[in-house]
Amino acid sequence: MIRANDPKLTSWVEVPEGSDFPIQNLPFGIYKIEGQQPRVCTAIGEHIADLYVLAEHGFFKDLDIDQEVFEQDYLNDFMALGKAKTSAVRNRLSEILDNDLEEWDASELASFFLKPQKDVEMLLPVKVGDYTDFYSSREHATNVGTMFRDPENALLPNWLHLPVGYHGRASSIVVSGTPIQRPVGQQKPNDADAPVFGPSRLLDFELEMGFVIGQPTQLGQSISTAEAEDYIFGMVVFNDWSARDIQKWEYVPLGPFLAKSFASTISPWIVTMDALDPFRTDGPEQDPEVLPYLKYEGQKNYDIHLEVGIQGENMKAPHIVCRSNFKYMYWNMSQQLAHHTVNGCNVNVGDICASGTISGPTPDSYGSMLEISWRGSKPVAMPDGSERKFIQDGDTVTMRAHCEKDGVRIGFGDTSGKILPARNTNS
Amino acid sequence: MIRANDPKLTSWVEVPEGSDFPIQNLPFGIYKIEGQQPRVCTAIGEHIADLYVLAEHGFFKDLDIDQEVFEQDYLNDFMALGKAKTSAVRNRLSEILDNDLEEWDASELASFFLKPQKDVEMLLPVKVGDYTDFYSSREHATNVGTMFRDPENALLPNWLHLPVGYHGRASSIVVSGTPIQRPVGQQKPNDADAPVFGPSRLLDFELEMGFVIGQPTQLGQSISTAEAEDYIFGMVVFNDWSARDIQKWEYVPLGPFLAKSFASTISPWIVTMDALDPFRTDGPEQDPEVLPYLKYEGQKNYDIHLEVGIQGENMKAPHIVCRSNFKYMYWNMSQQLAHHTVNGCNVNVGDICASGTISGPTPDSYGSMLEISWRGSKPVAMPDGSERKFIQDGDTVTMRAHCEKDGVRIGFGDTSGKILPARNTNS
Repeated sequence: MIRANDPKLTSWVEVPEGSDFPIQNLPFGIYKIEGQQPRVCTAIGEHIADLYVLAEHGFFKDLDIDQEVFEQDYLNDFMALGKAKTSAVRNRLSEILDNDLEEWDASELASFFLKPQKDVEMLLPVKVGDYTDFYSSREHATNVGTMFRDPENALLPNWLHLPVGYHGRASSIVVSGTPIQRPVGQQKPNDADAPVFGPSRLLDFELEMGFVIGQPTQLGQSISTAEAEDYIFGMVVFNDWSARDIQKWEYVPLGPFLAKSFASTISPWIVTMDALDPFRTDGPEQDPEVLPYLKYEGQKNYDIHLEVGIQGENMKAPHIVCRSNFKYMYWNMSQQLAHHTVNGCNVNVGDICASGTISGPTPDSYGSMLEISWRGSKPVAMPDGSERKFIQDGDTVTMRAHCEKDGVRIGFGDTSGKILPARNTNS
Repeated sequence: MIRANDPKLTSWVEVPEGSDFPIQNLPFGIYKIEGQQPRVCTAIGEHIADLYVLAEHGFFKDLDIDQEVFEQDYLNDFMALGKAKTSAVRNRLSEILDNDLEEWDASELASFFLKPQKDVEMLLPVKVGDYTDFYSSREHATNVGTMFRDPENALLPNWLHLPVGYHGRASSIVVSGTPIQRPVGQQKPNDADAPVFGPSRLLDFELEMGFVIGQPTQLGQSISTAEAEDYIFGMVVFNDWSARDIQKWEYVPLGPFLAKSFASTISPWIVTMDALDPFRTDGPEQDPEVLPYLKYEGQKNYDIHLEVGIQGENMKAPHIVCRSNFKYMYWNMSQQLAHHTVNGCNVNVGDICASGTISGPTPDSYGSMLEISWRGSKPVAMPDGSERKFIQDGDTVTMRAHCEKDGVRIGFGDTSGKILPARNTNS
């Protein structure tokens, strides 16, 4: 067992009941406070721990890591150290925060390297080179195919043979908490002869998880399913905001473009594959049999509970509209990465691959308003008496993800974004 | 008139007849020689001029530019200086290389800052953040629609209303001269029940031009057609290599992915919009009328002659299979950029937007083998007695682009790539 994953560990830092950040998690992020460069940190309970300060005090000395790696705008240089080092850093953090280890007087140091999360600003954790979005939930693809094409042939012919994916816009990936302006663009109402221009009326979220590349490949190199997890540093929660009306008009024949590129929101915390290791589970049986390069051994799915809440401006708390699970994915991350690189396409540190909308088998587990409201035909009743078919101005959409086992809960924190009104398009 | 564009200028550096690089061009690139960091350079005749050396000698002193900007792996920092400065640098280069100016004894300096192009390695000129591929040639979209869908309704309903585009893979953009390995992947032959795996048999080029973003925007900001050219630093030739058999099987419903992401080749030289200014021309009439945000004033198309040559391993010279022109574009770059950002999508310095295949009205001006050989039904006879439906192993595909007017020829140099056999997929 990885040291830091031991369920028996407790920390001398207080971790409230139900926290996403017990000592067994130790995700990585980038934080900032006034007057200081951005730095690498981890989360413990309701605090962050500053890795630059720990490095300054020699806690990583034997790991042969340049201290400057911890004072960066992004985690890319840290991830590029390789898993041998980043896993060792996580294990060292586990030792430092461990209630039972007294190799050093941590409480003395605590005032230097611990800061309340509420006092720091969490930044976008990675500089994203390329962002790829898959479409790997069978339930989601079936729902969309049923709504827009033919219920009898909801999945297109290629869907069961390869993890369908496409390139997304990297520049507009933002960190949780960033307000999202409702996009404007062309749409074509069914009864109109020509397209119209204006704010999207069918703004939606897509509940996704993303994995972050931690090791690069050269052009021409392929990654096998057996090797894939070596290249994956960790995961984030990913909200692939979508403007359904813009998407419907623009997407033929080359795929979604402006319907997605206005923003995607990710969690500030990257939870490592190490921390997620205890939560491996079997994936769905794949029938028809996949081609050899997509076959894999072992458990490559992960049991991660997901939920989405919507909070209107008049509401006191988010109303949960979806409870899903990452384990439903038909195509797992190792298959996605093997497919992505089978043609020799290279990957770089910081690239993100998102799963596509993660819908489960029942309507309360659908991962987008498109599916939950079934194209608007089944509005969702909200606690304040209003209803939602899609997302309204002023709504805050919050996604949460966590694993739980043996009394240990590993979470990703909140991934949220508030929708601001569209810019004025009359001027 | 921009000083450097004056057709009457000649340089004291020899510029052979038909050279792409007279004193009126002065494109920018990044070169490397053994034992030296990559540096910014321009091209003059058959030489490059090293801008770092010129900066060292004080030639840009009054322009208030940090000399380090000229010793970088990419042009991004240079472009980020803004057009006021980069245009001033180009005008200064024009003065330095001008035959009639004797403010300084250039011939004395020449041995320091001039190097034969054949002695240096040209590198990928930009660090590409996001790469977008448009689909803006009406003739190309019509040809593809005719072949794969319905000749009577070759253009999809959205095509005349917006510049269709999609996100491409940035990591696999390489500089001219980089060998390209034939990709492997899934294909589904028409007569097969299930997909097969192996080397692409229908490997193709796509003749495109790309524009490079020189100024960033913030998320939420849109660029109007009137402002668009302020954000465009210059242009490159762009070969969007395509595997037609992989594409056909994978692209529904989210667009091309592995069929394109194995490689794209660009020219090492970015020709500035300043240098291209004299070659503005009218674009095709747009009917139906476009929405207000896509309207534009002035000449936004450019008269750039394009050609594609294929040279098999047994051939002594490339055989020209296509002569086209960038002026055929239905949607111009300003419209593309206005559309791209109308939803608030941000752009960064170094982003590339490619045009999509540039086909002209006649078969000898089609910009891909798919169209030239009309899906393989009209093989092209080659001078060595062989024929081509698509690209074979060992073929070198070379694209060339140039403008010509008033005796001045502004070119992009060669953009070429040789196809290597696919990797062994039996092991």
